[in-house]
Amino acid sequence: MSRLIYLPLGGAGEIGMNAYVYGYGPKDAERLIVVDLGVTFPDMDTSPGVDLILPDIAWLKERRAMIDGIFITHAHEDHVGAIGHYWEQLGAPVYARKFTANIARRKLDEYGHPESVVRVVEAYPDVVECGPFKVSFVPISHSIPESAGLVIDTPEGRLIHSGDFKIDHTPVVGDPFNEELWAEVSKDGVKALICDSTNIFSPTAGRSEASIMDEVTGLMRDAPSMVVATTFASNIARLKTLADAAKAAGRSVCLLGRAMRRMVEAATETGILKDFPSTVSPEDVPNIPRENLLLLVTGSQGERRAASAQLANGKYLGITLQEGDTFLFSSKTIPGNERGVIRIMNQFSEMGVDVIDDAGGRYHVSGHANRPDLEAFHAIVKPQTLIPMHGEHRHLREHVKVANKNGLSGIVAVNGMMIDLSGNAPRVAEYIETGRTYLDGSVMVGALDGIVRDRIRMALNGHVVVTLVIDENDEPLGDPWVELAGLAETGNSNAALVDVLEQDLSQFVNRANAKTLRDDEKLEKELRTITRKSAVAEIGKKPEVTVIVSRLS
Amino acid sequence: MSRLIYLPLGGAGEIGMNAYVYGYGPKDAERLIVVDLGVTFPDMDTSPGVDLILPDIAWLKERRAMIDGIFITHAHEDHVGAIGHYWEQLGAPVYARKFTANIARRKLDEYGHPESVVRVVEAYPDVVECGPFKVSFVPISHSIPESAGLVIDTPEGRLIHSGDFKIDHTPVVGDPFNEELWAEVSKDGVKALICDSTNIFSPTAGRSEASIMDEVTGLMRDAPSMVVATTFASNIARLKTLADAAKAAGRSVCLLGRAMRRMVEAATETGILKDFPSTVSPEDVPNIPRENLLLLVTGSQGERRAASAQLANGKYLGITLQEGDTFLFSSKTIPGNERGVIRIMNQFSEMGVDVIDDAGGRYHVSGHANRPDLEAFHAIVKPQTLIPMHGEHRHLREHVKVANKNGLSGIVAVNGMMIDLSGNAPRVAEYIETGRTYLDGSVMVGALDGIVRDRIRMALNGHVVVTLVIDENDEPLGDPWVELAGLAETGNSNAALVDVLEQDLSQFVNRANAKTLRDDEKLEKELRTITRKSAVAEIGKKPEVTVIVSRLS
Repeated sequence: MSRLIYLPLGGAGEIGMNAYVYGYGPKDAERLIVVDLGVTFPDMDTSPGVDLILPDIAWLKERRAMIDGIFITHAHEDHVGAIGHYWEQLGAPVYARKFTANIARRKLDEYGHPESVVRVVEAYPDVVECGPFKVSFVPISHSIPESAGLVIDTPEGRLIHSGDFKIDHTPVVGDPFNEELWAEVSKDGVKALICDSTNIFSPTAGRSEASIMDEVTGLMRDAPSMVVATTFASNIARLKTLADAAKAAGRSVCLLGRAMRRMVEAATETGILKDFPSTVSPEDVPNIPRENLLLLVTGSQGERRAASAQLANGKYLGITLQEGDTFLFSSKTIPGNERGVIRIMNQFSEMGVDVIDDAGGRYHVSGHANRPDLEAFHAIVKPQTLIPMHGEHRHLREHVKVANKNGLSGIVAVNGMMIDLSGNAPRVAEYIETGRTYLDGSVMVGALDGIVRDRIRMALNGHVVVTLVIDENDEPLGDPWVELAGLAETGNSNAALVDVLEQDLSQFVNRANAKTLRDDEKLEKELRTITRKSAVAEIGKKPEVTVIVSRLS
Repeated sequence: MSRLIYLPLGGAGEIGMNAYVYGYGPKDAERLIVVDLGVTFPDMDTSPGVDLILPDIAWLKERRAMIDGIFITHAHEDHVGAIGHYWEQLGAPVYARKFTANIARRKLDEYGHPESVVRVVEAYPDVVECGPFKVSFVPISHSIPESAGLVIDTPEGRLIHSGDFKIDHTPVVGDPFNEELWAEVSKDGVKALICDSTNIFSPTAGRSEASIMDEVTGLMRDAPSMVVATTFASNIARLKTLADAAKAAGRSVCLLGRAMRRMVEAATETGILKDFPSTVSPEDVPNIPRENLLLLVTGSQGERRAASAQLANGKYLGITLQEGDTFLFSSKTIPGNERGVIRIMNQFSEMGVDVIDDAGGRYHVSGHANRPDLEAFHAIVKPQTLIPMHGEHRHLREHVKVANKNGLSGIVAVNGMMIDLSGNAPRVAEYIETGRTYLDGSVMVGALDGIVRDRIRMALNGHVVVTLVIDENDEPLGDPWVELAGLAETGNSNAALVDVLEQDLSQFVNRANAKTLRDDEKLEKELRTITRKSAVAEIGKKPEVTVIVSRLS
């Protein structure tokens, strides 16, 4: 007997690294499709030194032969960012609309995969037949061009996977939200709506991208000197709004940051971005009067290596901000990024640059549907069941509560929770072990491998290295030697910490019996214990300790 | 010729660790008073492993004999938290109002200093004569009882140091804001107003503490099961509002967390907190129906060891939250603390606990004056000059801009910037080297000592330890030995990273000439370089490397 399953591997229980699996077929032999393969970003608290966080796709890799296709709803990093890293391990064709495909191909190209891996799909009513599934891309408005919700026809009925969306009838660039179209694809019944939950806690209806044009234009006109604006590079509509406003105010536009140039290039190549004002190069900037300039820069989240952080540090590509300039965050700070953003704001403040942020919502609107908009979408689609996605646990839970209030049933499914959608009521079929994979330098490591845990411990506790040489007769050769990393040099006794530790360790070694000295494990344990104890007495900290016993044998 | 100086050592250019110095006398021989001695809290991004951040008081320690007094405006940690750690080094008497004195004494007591160090001062018109200064504590409303602004009379005229404040006429506990009193102390002219800047970016007038009573009462009535509320323990008025509302709704109150019990105790001891409902102990909680309970808990900022985090982890003092309970953040998340707070919210969501945060401002009001309130205060005090404090650079700068718009002159003075207030126009007299001191375990280290930098580097890059034994003839005894901490075990060549590094190092050592092998410095440098190079090739990371060469000589 066949079944229809839904399995989130990322994005359900977090905002980031989206990866959803749908399957149909006999239990444990389902044919599969993957929807989105995104990444999320590390932070110092939980993943220091990590370059990128990806979903754990072990479950998928074991079923590589069963995967019929990978569908990318839109080109945001949290939906497409892992395609380059993972494609080889999954092997299936990648389907996307033209702009998204352009971005996906650039990522695959970095890993040497051919262009033909990605197949460009036209919008609904075009259909991709993919194993037991028939999939259509239905245009939906979001903060990046050509976003799509997916209509997934299965032998058990129709599913709708919303992708990221908002209800925007004047999105500046790309497809407006189309009620009629969504009503049409929903009219014969929708088994389940798998739905964006990001803004479920925002109580008022969302605003259109077009609504900020007047404020932005006013700012460009009134700013006394150079204006620098940052937003997500992929927010092509915003870039167009900012650039058009600049042009109207007699300002030339300069793009700063690799992602900014790349996105504008992709949007132009694919014909999505039309009439974008011509830009000037960074080298030309010094030759143009400041009041005739708009810089569009990367780094709205305070990322250390992005253009905005570099400008805040003093200089980027020869450009320096100065008193009287205006820096506009046409963006929202994602929770967790506040420290970096605030650091930049204060650096600009020290330069005399006026910083304008999103506090009033005058220069930014969200790309996600707020609660009333989500309820409106539910009402159009009228699914049998709502399955919230793209949210932390609290968002998913609240989304179900809101649905329930409106008489719609829903189920909270987090990463690893396989839902059986066959029959009348969805139910949890299985719990899949899943988690996060870290790209660390050039290698992949598991989030639970202990590597990052060890880094965090060294950062919190410091690191002591103890070395001891033991001769052929199992006698210590010289005294133990101590090196400190990340620890105070002087402790409570006012002597050097290294000296105190070496003294305590020597005392032990000199008194240790032959049996202990012959036993590596015991010796290391004792040396570690003494080091920790002495450190606690001296500096009130229990450091990480590495003991290295070198035996001359 | 004598001069009047103002020198912030903490709190100006940041929100936290307030420490301001005023001086009068001949240049470099001024008599000094200190206003506030606070702390700030570490974070993983910039200060991993650090326990507490304190102002650098080197400048003050060198002038110990010149310090006539230490004045504490109120009992928040960022104003009084360093008094225990620093009092011995400064030695001067501490002046505070009764409640603040109670808290300060508890801190001094932890360090064995006698109660008599702290002198309780009555409110204005009482005056403390302190060297060339006459200081009065003028009651002002804030989010902790008995906050005071200071009126500081100097031979150069009157200064007003606002302390932290808001304009609140119904503060629930403590002194209402008193326009007449502030007008009276200002009527003969104020040379400079040194003024709180925290909420300068909040454009609308602030709300009174009393304004949330109805909403809180409604919540306590309507919640179907246990209510758990968190706020700063020192916000006695809020605790009273929450507890009174609970009582009205038939709920018993239980205090959880050391700071919570301590603050209520101090407020009761000093007679500030009257009619606080009697509380039940944590052991009694399981015997009371859930719908008849309010827990008041510490940890509104997501602090890992506080009661709220422990409840989110599953259990605290035998108490477990469950489906249907309500958790109220009657607090604002301080920027930078979002990650910790969101973690807790999601943990509660997983338990089925309804979390209510401050999104709507229904259950929390700020303790600081918003922009219109600051403007109103300027208008009452009418100082010759405004010197903003208690703010990041952007707050101080904006505060001056707001003042200028209203025809009031101002000067941005950040930590270390000594302002000469003598004569008619304040001017920068000197830049003092200052910064932050870390309490790390039980010892103090300088923020720039490199210790924390080394920790951050280990966290970002991992740590490799290389050991090599060299015999009496300067020949290598055995091969170099490698230990990894916080690094991937396997690299791109699919061999163990340790093996690859040891092989590359051995190759070098075996070919190294006698001169290199005799030269510790050279040998270490080479081994470090090879380790880094091999690591980059294998795992794409450049680790921190400690090389230990043991010589048998």
